[in-house]
Amino acid sequence: MRIGELSQKTGVPVPTIKYYVREGLLPSGELTSRNQASYGEAHERRLQLIRALADVGGMKVAEIAEVLAAVEDPERPLHKVLGSAARPMSGPDSENDDAESAAARAAVTDLISRRGWRTHASNPAAADLSEALAAMARLGHGAFADLLDTYADAAEQVARADLEYVDRHLAIEEKVEGVVIGTVLGEAVFSSLRRLAHVDASARLYGAGE
Amino acid sequence: MRIGELSQKTGVPVPTIKYYVREGLLPSGELTSRNQASYGEAHERRLQLIRALADVGGMKVAEIAEVLAAVEDPERPLHKVLGSAARPMSGPDSENDDAESAAARAAVTDLISRRGWRTHASNPAAADLSEALAAMARLGHGAFADLLDTYADAAEQVARADLEYVDRHLAIEEKVEGVVIGTVLGEAVFSSLRRLAHVDASARLYGAGE
Repeated sequence: MRIGELSQKTGVPVPTIKYYVREGLLPSGELTSRNQASYGEAHERRLQLIRALADVGGMKVAEIAEVLAAVEDPERPLHKVLGSAARPMSGPDSENDDAESAAARAAVTDLISRRGWRTHASNPAAADLSEALAAMARLGHGAFADLLDTYADAAEQVARADLEYVDRHLAIEEKVEGVVIGTVLGEAVFSSLRRLAHVDASARLYGAGE
Repeated sequence: MRIGELSQKTGVPVPTIKYYVREGLLPSGELTSRNQASYGEAHERRLQLIRALADVGGMKVAEIAEVLAAVEDPERPLHKVLGSAARPMSGPDSENDDAESAAARAAVTDLISRRGWRTHASNPAAADLSEALAAMARLGHGAFADLLDTYADAAEQVARADLEYVDRHLAIEEKVEGVVIGTVLGEAVFSSLRRLAHVDASARLYGAGE
């Protein structure tokens, strides 16, 4: 198909498609004449993926490029792709050494061993979790740590469902892409549901109508 | 305290503090001489809040300014503040009218009524949820919708725990700020836990050590 049809099918404007090609996010079309290229289903699908990561995941072009590179590199272990797909949180520069950070790191190590999670404390998600807990403690909400197991129960349920979905629905060559989609879009799904459930929980607790 | 001490206590560099004051995120200190200002505990706490929203929540300065304005405006209803605190997802310009969007919107309306959630389909979180589901459907993952109730169960548990925390630990005048902190930082906490639980679920399902 021509670029105009590709644009119509995906809802991505032609100049944006050209920009993605220039930035290496999308392979060029096959040249059919000096100034016309032809695009196929692989382009359409790739554009849908870029659009999902940008619109729903709120990712920047450079971040999307990194995730796509990871998806295409079979050498790259899955959890590194997952790391790229996760929203960028506290960078390595925000490593803290105050009392709150130390206490939060200890709480996370303790949580992982208490729940018997087969994951290492060196997982970047563990550092992100420590940083979030430390930020809460600095704001006087250290007691929030009491909710950790409730959150962990919920996270386990969701993660188990995610993995079963990947296992049941995806061929091996689709798994990496599926994990990226699930990580970014699944996070958006959960975040929206949590906000909806907040309104409901608030209405039930305080008895107010919406 | 002087600005240098404020910087040391919060880990925020002096030029950044001055930038926040210029941008209206932080009130000016009290002038003690022609070129010296004094800062108090309110400044320290506000800086911790800004830092948490920026570092952990990944929010931009303009977004933080909006959330802080909402926190300070008692006229503004809680769910609008929540809307500001939630990570910006698909903007109003990405409203879609394709078949996937229509189906996703219907699925969300159905979910809300099936679960008896006291919330309206006009809640912005419902639109965000529809967009995430539609993006999945466009990528061939319409079957992900089968996981919605598992996700919703988990979201309910977390939301109930959040609200009980706010109810138990926060005075009425702290509630709005508490909700902002809980929305942004709580989301980071859940997201990290989900990534940790993924590694564990994957190890259990595929039997591989990490």
